[in-house]
Amino acid sequence: MAVELPPYRPQLAQCGAIALGTPQLEVSLKFFRDILGMEEVERVGDTVYLRGYQEMKHHSLVLFQNDTATVDSYSFRVSRPEDVELFYNQLLADEVEVVELPTGHQAGRGTAIRFVVPHAGHTFELYYDIDAPEAPEEIRSRLLSNSSRRRGLGVRRLDHYNIQAGFENVGKAEQWLQNSLGFKRREYVHLPDHPDMLIASWSAVTSQVHDLAIAMSMNNQDNQLHHVAFNLENHSDLLVAADTLRDLDVHFNCGPGKHGIGQAMYLYLREPGSGHRIELYSGGYHIFDPDWKALGWEPTNQDGMTWFGQELDVTQDGEMATSTESVSSLTSLIGQKDPAPVA
Amino acid sequence: MAVELPPYRPQLAQCGAIALGTPQLEVSLKFFRDILGMEEVERVGDTVYLRGYQEMKHHSLVLFQNDTATVDSYSFRVSRPEDVELFYNQLLADEVEVVELPTGHQAGRGTAIRFVVPHAGHTFELYYDIDAPEAPEEIRSRLLSNSSRRRGLGVRRLDHYNIQAGFENVGKAEQWLQNSLGFKRREYVHLPDHPDMLIASWSAVTSQVHDLAIAMSMNNQDNQLHHVAFNLENHSDLLVAADTLRDLDVHFNCGPGKHGIGQAMYLYLREPGSGHRIELYSGGYHIFDPDWKALGWEPTNQDGMTWFGQELDVTQDGEMATSTESVSSLTSLIGQKDPAPVA
Amino acid sequence: MAVELPPYRPQLAQCGAIALGTPQLEVSLKFFRDILGMEEVERVGDTVYLRGYQEMKHHSLVLFQNDTATVDSYSFRVSRPEDVELFYNQLLADEVEVVELPTGHQAGRGTAIRFVVPHAGHTFELYYDIDAPEAPEEIRSRLLSNSSRRRGLGVRRLDHYNIQAGFENVGKAEQWLQNSLGFKRREYVHLPDHPDMLIASWSAVTSQVHDLAIAMSMNNQDNQLHHVAFNLENHSDLLVAADTLRDLDVHFNCGPGKHGIGQAMYLYLREPGSGHRIELYSGGYHIFDPDWKALGWEPTNQDGMTWFGQELDVTQDGEMATSTESVSSLTSLIGQKDPAPVA
Amino acid sequence: MAVELPPYRPQLAQCGAIALGTPQLEVSLKFFRDILGMEEVERVGDTVYLRGYQEMKHHSLVLFQNDTATVDSYSFRVSRPEDVELFYNQLLADEVEVVELPTGHQAGRGTAIRFVVPHAGHTFELYYDIDAPEAPEEIRSRLLSNSSRRRGLGVRRLDHYNIQAGFENVGKAEQWLQNSLGFKRREYVHLPDHPDMLIASWSAVTSQVHDLAIAMSMNNQDNQLHHVAFNLENHSDLLVAADTLRDLDVHFNCGPGKHGIGQAMYLYLREPGSGHRIELYSGGYHIFDPDWKALGWEPTNQDGMTWFGQELDVTQDGEMATSTESVSSLTSLIGQKDPAPVA
Repeated sequence: MAVELPPYRPQLAQCGAIALGTPQLEVSLKFFRDILGMEEVERVGDTVYLRGYQEMKHHSLVLFQNDTATVDSYSFRVSRPEDVELFYNQLLADEVEVVELPTGHQAGRGTAIRFVVPHAGHTFELYYDIDAPEAPEEIRSRLLSNSSRRRGLGVRRLDHYNIQAGFENVGKAEQWLQNSLGFKRREYVHLPDHPDMLIASWSAVTSQVHDLAIAMSMNNQDNQLHHVAFNLENHSDLLVAADTLRDLDVHFNCGPGKHGIGQAMYLYLREPGSGHRIELYSGGYHIFDPDWKALGWEPTNQDGMTWFGQELDVTQDGEMATSTESVSSLTSLIGQKDPAPVA
Repeated sequence: MAVELPPYRPQLAQCGAIALGTPQLEVSLKFFRDILGMEEVERVGDTVYLRGYQEMKHHSLVLFQNDTATVDSYSFRVSRPEDVELFYNQLLADEVEVVELPTGHQAGRGTAIRFVVPHAGHTFELYYDIDAPEAPEEIRSRLLSNSSRRRGLGVRRLDHYNIQAGFENVGKAEQWLQNSLGFKRREYVHLPDHPDMLIASWSAVTSQVHDLAIAMSMNNQDNQLHHVAFNLENHSDLLVAADTLRDLDVHFNCGPGKHGIGQAMYLYLREPGSGHRIELYSGGYHIFDPDWKALGWEPTNQDGMTWFGQELDVTQDGEMATSTESVSSLTSLIGQKDPAPVA
Repeated sequence: MAVELPPYRPQLAQCGAIALGTPQLEVSLKFFRDILGMEEVERVGDTVYLRGYQEMKHHSLVLFQNDTATVDSYSFRVSRPEDVELFYNQLLADEVEVVELPTGHQAGRGTAIRFVVPHAGHTFELYYDIDAPEAPEEIRSRLLSNSSRRRGLGVRRLDHYNIQAGFENVGKAEQWLQNSLGFKRREYVHLPDHPDMLIASWSAVTSQVHDLAIAMSMNNQDNQLHHVAFNLENHSDLLVAADTLRDLDVHFNCGPGKHGIGQAMYLYLREPGSGHRIELYSGGYHIFDPDWKALGWEPTNQDGMTWFGQELDVTQDGEMATSTESVSSLTSLIGQKDPAPVA
Repeated sequence: MAVELPPYRPQLAQCGAIALGTPQLEVSLKFFRDILGMEEVERVGDTVYLRGYQEMKHHSLVLFQNDTATVDSYSFRVSRPEDVELFYNQLLADEVEVVELPTGHQAGRGTAIRFVVPHAGHTFELYYDIDAPEAPEEIRSRLLSNSSRRRGLGVRRLDHYNIQAGFENVGKAEQWLQNSLGFKRREYVHLPDHPDMLIASWSAVTSQVHDLAIAMSMNNQDNQLHHVAFNLENHSDLLVAADTLRDLDVHFNCGPGKHGIGQAMYLYLREPGSGHRIELYSGGYHIFDPDWKALGWEPTNQDGMTWFGQELDVTQDGEMATSTESVSSLTSLIGQKDPAPVA
């Protein structure tokens, strides 16, 4: 019997690294390295490269001195060496402006490509090659699968990015991410009476519920970071983190609690050097089912955002539009506008 | 610039279900359903289908009345509907005997194929289609990603199979699993002075460190189950399970402890109805790196099997050959034999 | 060298049992027995006696059918058999009305005395003798120190009472509890600019930070129960309880979180049958220091009530006066009044 | 009705401090301070005073440079200032040699008395007064009940002492500890066919199951330390400690596991500088019942020592005589001897 073979397509493999500008590099470095326990792998001038204790690759976090808190790029690794070029060709064919970055543009990394996500405005970079340096002997682990010993609050790896765009752009951007980069939508929230209008979507290229979430911003701006999440081994590690951060007077605005969407526990805090929102994240479920259907949440069902624990404070600028109040604000804001269709 | 596209190949997506024969069906059912908390989804005569609370599909465990404790099959789901047929064609081309099983051969499941793994002797089944029935209302969860509420000791899903084969067959079988079914070796133990001879291999088709482990058996027999593992949400759930099972006088021979290989916590026990060894399993790391190199452990390095906690008792028939004593026994047993080459 | 010997005084040993009236006895019973996992030890008509799995004595909770949710009594055990009579004599000497209750007034219990706490209005009972029945074989534990196996959400014992009185009475009542019943104040919150006016006090007759807390009520009423707390073994058990209760749609208004005062984790919920507020409680520190000085918290320091996690909702009737808003309301409410002096 | 008042007796309040000699002071200090996270409060020459983060008092551990690993003293605080003198008088009356130690014999401590426990041979010290110094600002906690912030593996306080004596002395010594110092026996193991001969006893002056355990030593020697235990907040902290210590290559001979006796989780390790056995300890139950009857374990019931987890290795010198083998050895060793009667 004849079976038609599907075409080969380039694929993303995993989140790579986020590059964060901070007005207080030393404060930020101290936070990620000395409190969260990440390894400072390399420093080049005012740029520092860090990784978690279970990451073999050169870095998953880049901190650089900058006048303001900013995000230079969100990067992803592709599945096969040739996929960098295949994505380059495909982006050109889609009329997306794309530039090639040479080896070493980020220390330890091979050739990459860089482009702006249509509709959303965030800068993405894709690459395959990255060094896997051995840690200095004094922090090296006896476990072959750890790049260094667990230290500090125990950040073991980058987990996911959560980004925001304007009311009419979220749906279009998410569609583009599916079609062009292969993200699969896993769970989502839509507007009441607008099942075709996304408020937020959690999507992935791995078995995680999300490597990338995209949501409407309350201030209707594109190209915003809501938070970047780092993974801890256990729920109990989040409780110790909460204890420790409270005692160090690090402000955390929300948690510990558990999201219904993704079923992971969370703790949200403001990184002291830059004010970027950071999520400490643990647990959750993995999706291996090949026929997973995205789970759709009514925005009035608060279980999705907060299964238990403290709700995110949504009164601040740039917060996610997911609470009851914010959804009703959004609905009236959007008003007569023509909703963008989503899949 | 021209990039050569890789050929399309059928793929496995995830573990499907294990079908276990038990001489005491009601005792086994009581254990999995009432103590471990799995859902009894369907019963057909002397065959019962169960699933964990985070599994949408019809079942991941089949229990059937049988004179002896036995394994009828280990099944896997494939990534795309057409992969069932593609695997069928490929197995035929490899001269592996393969039969087609009709829809409903296991309740709720579509067409499957069945064959014996060369060298190892275990019976595998592959399929794509499976029903996703809704749980009865009295145990239904408010979380969209749960098929039922967490109950009992909180088994949320099947995690992996651990199988055994004879001394000279492990290497050949593992090689076949890589080449024909696409398993990727993640960690392994080899014989001392025989870096080319596998004692045990942990390999996966998902981001898990292993969906399938294969190891030498102390009694040099093929087609043996060492254990089947079920996943719990947290390390703390394993401690509660240990407390509860001890108080119910369910024999557990090992744990709680933590493997260095995979970095998950474990508890091994004998299922009271059949004596099959069951592992309760929690945590561990995921591999998203596209260029992961399998981690090789010296058999004398006990950290791999037991990072902390109680060691598996290896004096029993069918135990894994991974302790210091067993490795030295094995080495002398294998003696002058010609080692099977492994990758 | 001569040392003057202190006089012998009768002492309280521990919390005994709370007797709760509920308009829906079967709903309440189902909650405490089937969900929280307490043992139903005895039933006499419309009164049911329960205990946690680590309580040897007959009961620590009495549920009885009643038109409204009510508290019949808060009881304590005394340290020595003769202390019942010594307390009786002492109360009489203090001109507190006290009645003697015969053996069996609560099933399984010996002679008790009953009186109303001056100023606060709550009914207390004191006793020494109580049966220690063995659990039915099907739930009996193999651990000698458990009266039954851990079941359900794992309530192992009654932990403490938290009661409320009017603005001017809290200080006087707490003073009386110290002087007459031997409670030691461990931590407390006082009014701003009124260091001599208690908002709340945590005091104990054991090494616990509190066996009894007393606080001002927002509605300025005496004789109110804020909550009764039951003890779970681990912080992780509270997270499982939160998961389970949310999925069973049991309303919990606050938590999981951690109090700075006492350093225990909490989860507050409304018992479905009666609406009584119940706290699930785990961890905290013990005070063995013989020279402990009560720790005083400024009411504006929210760390005391909520070190991390969700704050108690204080807008409801009968809530504790400990949030920023409530403290400022209280301060204005109390206004010109003459504060009651406290130690 | 007349009630006879019981006589006033001096009482112990809590464990004070253990004074450990170590041949490698700096290694030991680094272990307790930098790995376990205790605070170095004061150093006087080659003697260092440390405390856990929840201890207000000056110290609970004294480390001093010594040629061999040794114990200078086990100390306890008494309940009232006058109890030091009352105990002094009572010991003299019992013909126990007792010396008075001046203020500052251990830094920060008031007057103490020192004597050798009859039959067992261990040196005890009793005192009431001890300073409560504030920690340096850089490690001070925002929680009023912490003397410093939680750091390292999170030792919050000294928990208990576990000591050993010869076969015929354990029963006599334990009896003396009850009669003269007021210890209450909580759980115990006796010889088979000798219900009147103690193998081990867990006894307390607080609500803990034990502040002091005393057991037969396999080598029939008196005046031995089996281990000193330090308390961690949660079971999960023990798992993190096991991970961390294994990765630092600190030898731990047993755990993590759970004792049936006391129901706490444990991890036993050898302190790297001295080789003293240290227990990290978490959880367990508290006894507030005034009529608690000591729970007696058959030595063949292994649940008492190891409810779950790894058993203590009893083949080493100085190990506890509690495993099946050791009990049978002991029984034959003791043979015809005349057992010491115990209560």
